[in-house]
Amino acid sequence: MTPTSGLVLFAHGARDPEWAEAFRAIADRVAATRPDLAVRLAFLEFQKPALADAITELVTAGHQRIRIAPLFMAQGGHLKKDVPILLDDIRARHPALQLELLPAIGDVAELRDAIAHWLIKAAAEIPA
Amino acid sequence: MTPTSGLVLFAHGARDPEWAEAFRAIADRVAATRPDLAVRLAFLEFQKPALADAITELVTAGHQRIRIAPLFMAQGGHLKKDVPILLDDIRARHPALQLELLPAIGDVAELRDAIAHWLIKAAAEIPA
Repeated sequence: MTPTSGLVLFAHGARDPEWAEAFRAIADRVAATRPDLAVRLAFLEFQKPALADAITELVTAGHQRIRIAPLFMAQGGHLKKDVPILLDDIRARHPALQLELLPAIGDVAELRDAIAHWLIKAAAEIPA
Repeated sequence: MTPTSGLVLFAHGARDPEWAEAFRAIADRVAATRPDLAVRLAFLEFQKPALADAITELVTAGHQRIRIAPLFMAQGGHLKKDVPILLDDIRARHPALQLELLPAIGDVAELRDAIAHWLIKAAAEIPA
């Protein structure tokens, strides 16, 4: 089965290549569960590929529906200012592409719940 | 009941004050579930209070066991380089304080699972 849809996990990036290991592990798990989907990891800075390059690669391979999942804690300047400019540029280059931006980690109710739940457990080990 | 232990949710911070809303919501939930615990939010940059100030406030109020939960996606330069310097300084100022740094979001197995699970669901809505 040749995937026609793509999912790009979009992370900030860091000088330390180890920084991306958690995201690679997450991308591998999603890809293993959804072999019908082309899963890619892309970065805003410091690491490669850049978002536009990952998307161009997917479009060139025939994918015309791509979701971008920003692996950012919350919507700050990067997601509110930098990413719309990147997306406008990508849409101008690939007018037929269906592109969708998913919410940031802290804006997803179930992930907010998961973080709170983990913190409550971690705190439970502290004697009051 | 007067809390004797503290939990500091430590986030990067951003110029946009709305950036911290998800973290405030998470801190409020943890505090509501653990009224015996002093829960604080602190920032590395752009927003107040700074980590050292939040901890000094807790120590002054009598808390001698404090956990810091870094609300960062992964361990990059901030957690590997900046935070150890901040912690050394805090420990020098408060030698009796029991201070513990929890792992980053992407280094917690159950949070990595939660993110992967959410992405698999989000991807499921994409026709292959």
